[in-house]
Amino acid sequence: MSHAPSRAPSRAPSWVPASEFARVREEIADPYDRAAAVSTLARINTLYMIERAGSGHLGSSFSAADIVTHLYLSEMRDPGTADGDVYFSSKGHDVPGLYALLAGLALLDEALIHRLRRLDGLPGHPDVRTPNMPFNTGSLGMGISKAKGLILADRLAGRARRVHVLTGDGELQEGQNWEALAGAVRHGMRELTVVVDHNKIQSDTWVADVSDLGDLEAKFRSFGWGVVRCDGNDPQALEAAFAKRAAAFPDGPAVLVADTVKGAGCGTFAATTSMREGEWRYRYHSGAPSPDDCAAAYAELWASAGELLERHGVAPVRSRPAPDALDALDEPDEQGAPDEQDGPYEPYKLPPVYGAALVELARQDARVVALDADLVLDTGLIPFWEEFPDRFFEFGIAEQDMVSAAGGLAAGGRLPFVHSFSCFLHARPNEQIYNNATEGRRIVYAGSLAGLVPAAPGHSHQAVRDISALGAIPGLVVAEPANAAQTRALVRYAGTAEESVYLRLSSAPVRAVADALPAGEDPATGRGTTVRQGGPLIAIGAGPVVLEQLMGAAELLAADGVELTVVNLPWLNRVDRNWLAGLARGAQALTVVEHHYTHGGQADTVARALLELGPAAPPAFRGLGLTRLPGCGTEAETLAAHGMDAASLAAALRP
Amino acid sequence: MSHAPSRAPSRAPSWVPASEFARVREEIADPYDRAAAVSTLARINTLYMIERAGSGHLGSSFSAADIVTHLYLSEMRDPGTADGDVYFSSKGHDVPGLYALLAGLALLDEALIHRLRRLDGLPGHPDVRTPNMPFNTGSLGMGISKAKGLILADRLAGRARRVHVLTGDGELQEGQNWEALAGAVRHGMRELTVVVDHNKIQSDTWVADVSDLGDLEAKFRSFGWGVVRCDGNDPQALEAAFAKRAAAFPDGPAVLVADTVKGAGCGTFAATTSMREGEWRYRYHSGAPSPDDCAAAYAELWASAGELLERHGVAPVRSRPAPDALDALDEPDEQGAPDEQDGPYEPYKLPPVYGAALVELARQDARVVALDADLVLDTGLIPFWEEFPDRFFEFGIAEQDMVSAAGGLAAGGRLPFVHSFSCFLHARPNEQIYNNATEGRRIVYAGSLAGLVPAAPGHSHQAVRDISALGAIPGLVVAEPANAAQTRALVRYAGTAEESVYLRLSSAPVRAVADALPAGEDPATGRGTTVRQGGPLIAIGAGPVVLEQLMGAAELLAADGVELTVVNLPWLNRVDRNWLAGLARGAQALTVVEHHYTHGGQADTVARALLELGPAAPPAFRGLGLTRLPGCGTEAETLAAHGMDAASLAAALRP
Repeated sequence: MSHAPSRAPSRAPSWVPASEFARVREEIADPYDRAAAVSTLARINTLYMIERAGSGHLGSSFSAADIVTHLYLSEMRDPGTADGDVYFSSKGHDVPGLYALLAGLALLDEALIHRLRRLDGLPGHPDVRTPNMPFNTGSLGMGISKAKGLILADRLAGRARRVHVLTGDGELQEGQNWEALAGAVRHGMRELTVVVDHNKIQSDTWVADVSDLGDLEAKFRSFGWGVVRCDGNDPQALEAAFAKRAAAFPDGPAVLVADTVKGAGCGTFAATTSMREGEWRYRYHSGAPSPDDCAAAYAELWASAGELLERHGVAPVRSRPAPDALDALDEPDEQGAPDEQDGPYEPYKLPPVYGAALVELARQDARVVALDADLVLDTGLIPFWEEFPDRFFEFGIAEQDMVSAAGGLAAGGRLPFVHSFSCFLHARPNEQIYNNATEGRRIVYAGSLAGLVPAAPGHSHQAVRDISALGAIPGLVVAEPANAAQTRALVRYAGTAEESVYLRLSSAPVRAVADALPAGEDPATGRGTTVRQGGPLIAIGAGPVVLEQLMGAAELLAADGVELTVVNLPWLNRVDRNWLAGLARGAQALTVVEHHYTHGGQADTVARALLELGPAAPPAFRGLGLTRLPGCGTEAETLAAHGMDAASLAAALRP
Repeated sequence: MSHAPSRAPSRAPSWVPASEFARVREEIADPYDRAAAVSTLARINTLYMIERAGSGHLGSSFSAADIVTHLYLSEMRDPGTADGDVYFSSKGHDVPGLYALLAGLALLDEALIHRLRRLDGLPGHPDVRTPNMPFNTGSLGMGISKAKGLILADRLAGRARRVHVLTGDGELQEGQNWEALAGAVRHGMRELTVVVDHNKIQSDTWVADVSDLGDLEAKFRSFGWGVVRCDGNDPQALEAAFAKRAAAFPDGPAVLVADTVKGAGCGTFAATTSMREGEWRYRYHSGAPSPDDCAAAYAELWASAGELLERHGVAPVRSRPAPDALDALDEPDEQGAPDEQDGPYEPYKLPPVYGAALVELARQDARVVALDADLVLDTGLIPFWEEFPDRFFEFGIAEQDMVSAAGGLAAGGRLPFVHSFSCFLHARPNEQIYNNATEGRRIVYAGSLAGLVPAAPGHSHQAVRDISALGAIPGLVVAEPANAAQTRALVRYAGTAEESVYLRLSSAPVRAVADALPAGEDPATGRGTTVRQGGPLIAIGAGPVVLEQLMGAAELLAADGVELTVVNLPWLNRVDRNWLAGLARGAQALTVVEHHYTHGGQADTVARALLELGPAAPPAFRGLGLTRLPGCGTEAETLAAHGMDAASLAAALRP
C-alpha cells in the first residue's frame, strides 16, 4: 500500500482544518466510511491537542470518537441549533475528542484547538462557556439527572428535542446514576438516550478489577429502561442500534451499551496492546503520551486516513503546521510544571511522599487501613497496596460508599485512611464524612490535587472550596503540608491525633524554595512556623505553591527594601490563639494567602480568632484568595490570572 | 372473646416492664406466637414512648417490629455481645420500635423508654452513644456501606459475626444503596444480609406514587445479590426466609425483601385503613397520633396481647403506670413547642408561609418550578403542587438527582426552587449544588428544619453546618428569615436576585416576639435591621428562635439596667461593609449568635469583614454558636444545654 499521504507530519505536529473535514464529508459517499474518515481526522486533532497541552484524556476520547461522530453526522437533528437535538458527555473526560469533532464540523472555532487546557482556551473538562457544551461535567455521575431536568424544561416549553448523554462505564459506579433512572421511567422520557462508552478501562485499570459492573444490561433493564447493545466503534452497528432503540422503546428512556476499546482507532493506545503481560495500569488515561508513542500514533492515524481516502478516490488531507509553540509545552503533564530553579534540584510531588509515609505508619500501627476510589496512582497508594494488600480496599468511583465503609472499618477498630482527589472527597461524600464525625470515629481523609494548581484539568478538579465544606465538622482538623518533611510529620500526626484529620495535599511540583522551608518540629495543632523572618509585614500561607510564591514575593519586596515575614500555618481550620497573639503583637499588617475561595477558608479562621483576641490596635488584616471560578491553564498563567503569583502578591502586599 | 386483660390501660398511659417480656418469652412455648407476643408488647411500649415524646416514627416502627423481633429472638447469635451478630437499621426511623424491643430484652436500660427524644434519653434517630446502636443513622442510604466496612474490619480481626441491616423501601431511592452493592459481591460477603422493610409507604405517601421502585427483586439480582422474598410481618415466614437465604446463597450477600404493612399489628395505624378513599398522605409517619387514635390503638394492642396470652394459658401482662409526666408533653409534635406568650397569639411556622409566598411568586413568574424530595408537607409545597401540578416535580429521596435535574431545568430556562430538609439539602448533594454554580445557573434551594431546634429528631436532622458547607460557593447567597414578613420578602428576593439563593428555613414555631420584629423594607443583600435599639452592646442574629431568645435576653439585661441592641442580619454569608462599619462605630461589644457550629458561619463572615474594615479600635467581638454535636430534646432543654436560651445568652452578653 502506498497510501501514506505526502503531507502527513512526522514530528512537527500538524492539524487538520475544518475545511478538510468538510471536503472529506462531501467527497466520501458511503456513510460508514465517511464517518470512519471523520472520526480518524478527529482523532488526529485530538492527539495534536493533547500532545500540545501536555495532558488530556486520550484513551477515553478515542473510545468515544465513533459514537460521537455517528451522533453528529447521522443521528442528531440540527445539532448546534437552539431547537436541535442535544448531546453531552457526562464523564466529560473525553472532551478533547468532542472539541476536535465540533471544530471539524465548524461548531467550534477551530483556532481554539491550539489552546486546550489554556486560559481562555478549551478547558480540560466541559464548561458551558464553550459553545455547544450544554453542561459542566467531569464530576462524575450527574449527566443523566441533568438531561432529565433539561427534558422537563423542554416539555414545559413545548420543545421536542432529543437528548443524548454519554457516560463512562467506570462512571456507573457512582450511585447517582442509579438514583437518576427511576424518574426517567416515571416521566416516560422517550427523548432520553444514554450511551455507555463501555471501554472496560477506568482511570487506573480494568473496570472488572476495580469494581465489576456485572450484567450491565440486566441492571438497566431491572430499572425499567430499554436496553440495546452494540459495537460502539462500528458506524454501521451504531446506526442499527439507534434504529433499534427507536423502534423497540418508543415510549421511554433507553440505554445503548456500546462496547468500545479504550484508545480505539489506534493500536498504539488501544487497551489490548497497551497493557502488556504483567502490566496492570492503563497508560493513556490522562497524561500526554511519550514523543515516541505520539509519533507512532500519528503515523498510524494518517495511514488509516490515507487508506480510506484513497479507497474512495479522495485526495489526501492537507494538514496545517502548528502555530508557534506555546509555553504549555514546558509542562510535561497535568501535574507537571517547569523547574524554575537553577542547578541539579529535581522538583517532586507530595502524593508519593505521603504514600511512603503512610506505609511507614502502617508498619508500626496495625490498625491502619487504606481505602481508594480508583486513583491509586494519583493518591500515592501503590506502595501501600503492594506491601499491605489485605489492608487495602478499592471501592471504585464510589466515594460515598467508601467514606461510609470507612466508618464501618473504624467501628471495627481500624484506623482508616480514605483517598481520592480532594475535589471529589470533600464534596460528594460530604454528608457521609459528617455522619462519621457524629459517631466520633477516628478517620483520616487524604485528598490530593488540592488547590488552584495544577490548573489544567479545570474547575471540576480544582479543590478550592474544601476548607469551607469540611471546616465546621466537629472533631475534624484540616491541614495542608508544604513539603516532604511536613507531609511526613502530618501523616505521623494523623496517626496519633485525637481528632480526625483531613489532609489537603497539593499535587503541584514542590520546588527547592518550598522544599527548604522548615517544617516545624512536632506539629502542634494551630501553630505556625516563621519561614522567613522579615519586618512587621506578615504573610501567612500553607502548601508548597502558596509558600513558594510568597517567598518569591518576599524577594521582590526585599529588592525595594521591604522585608516581608512569611509564616507557614499548615492548619486551615484551627489556630492557636496564644501563638496568634504573639505573631500579631507588633505586626503592622497580616495577610492570609490561600488557594481557596476567599470565604470560609484559613483567612476567616485567622480573622475570627484575631478579632476575638481583642487586641487594642489590631494589625491591618487581609485575606487573599479566589474571588471567582478557578481558571484552566498552565500553572504560571493561572497563578497570575488569580493574583497568586509572586509578582501579584508582592504588589498586593506592598505597604 | 373475653381476653381484654384487666390491667390494660385506658387513657392513663402505662408500659410493659422487661420482667413481663421475660415471663412471656418463657411461658409461651410456640416460637411464632412467642415472637408475636413479644412484638405486640414492643408495639405497646413503642406507642407509649411516642405518645409521651410527642413525636417519633410510629408507622415504620410497627412495620419493622416483627422483623426485628425475629432477628433478636431467633436469628442472631449472641446479640448484644462483642462477638455476637450485629443488627442495625439504616433508615433509623424505626428506632422507637427497636428501643422498645431492646429494653424488653434487657439490652437497654428500661428506664430510658420514658425519655424518648429527650436530653440524655433516647435520641429520635439511632446514635452510637446508646447501647446496642452500632451506627448513627437517619441520614438515609449509608447502612449497607457501613456494614461492609464493619465486615472488612471483622475479617481483619478474625471475627466471624454476621451483620443484618434493615433498610426502608423509600430509602432505596438514594443512590448510595446501589453504589454499595458491588463491593459486597466482590468481597463475597456471606456475612451480610440486608432486609428491606417493604411497607410501600415513605414519608409522604405510597412509594409507587413518589418514585416507583419497579421490580426490586430483579434489581438486587442484577447487582449480583441473592434475593429472597417473604411476608415480613409473619414470624414463620421470616424464619423460612432466613433459612432459604443461608441455604441458597451461602457464599455472598443477600437481600430479604420483606413485604410489610406500615403500622402493622394495629389497624388504627395500618396503611390500608389509614389512607381512606380520597386521602393521599400517610398520617402516622413521624408525629404522635391523636389521643383518640392512641386510645384505640392501645385497646387493640392490649386485646391482641391478651388473646395470645390467653390462648397459651399465660397470665395477663402487668403493665406499669407512667412516671410523672414530663414537660415534653407540652410539645405536641416534633416541630411543636409550647406557646409561651400570654393572650390570643397563635404561634405559626415558616414553611407554610414560604409555600404560600412561592405560589404567589409562581403566579407572576412562569419560569418558577418546584422540586421536592419526599417532603412535600414539611417544606410547605402542597399548595404549589395543587395549583401548579405541571410545574411540580417529585424526585423521591434522591437529593443528588433532584439538584442536578434542577441544573437541567435552569439550563432549559426555568427558575427552579429545590426543596428538602436543610440537613439533607446542604450535604448529600453538596457537589451537585457547586456544579450548578459553576455553570452560573440561577437556582433557589430552600431547606426547612434548619438550625438547632426543633431538636427532637436528633442530630441527623438538625442542620447546624449548612452555612459552612455552602457558604463559599460562588454566586450563592445564604439567608434565613425570622418571621412571615421576612420569609415573603426573601422569596421575592430569591425570585429576582442575580445570584442563586439558599434559604435556611426554621421549622420551629414563630411566636409573637419574633413575629413582631420589623423585617426590613426591600431586602438589601448583606444589610441588617436593628430590631431593638439599646446601647453600645450589640447582638446580631438571624431566624425566629435566635431572635426571640435574644429579645428575651435583652429583657433580662434591661432589668439590670443593661440595654442590649439587637440586630437582625438575615444574610449568613454576606455582609455589607458600609452597613457593618456604621453598626460597629461606637459599639462597645459585638456578638454574633447563631444556630450553627461556631465555625464557618455568620460569626466568621462578620468577624472577617469587621477586621478587614480596619477600625482603629474595634469593638470586643464574639461569636456564640454550637461547640459540640446538637443535643436531642425539647426546644427549651436543648436551647439551655447549648447556652442558646435567653437566660444563658443574657449571662454571656452581660458586660
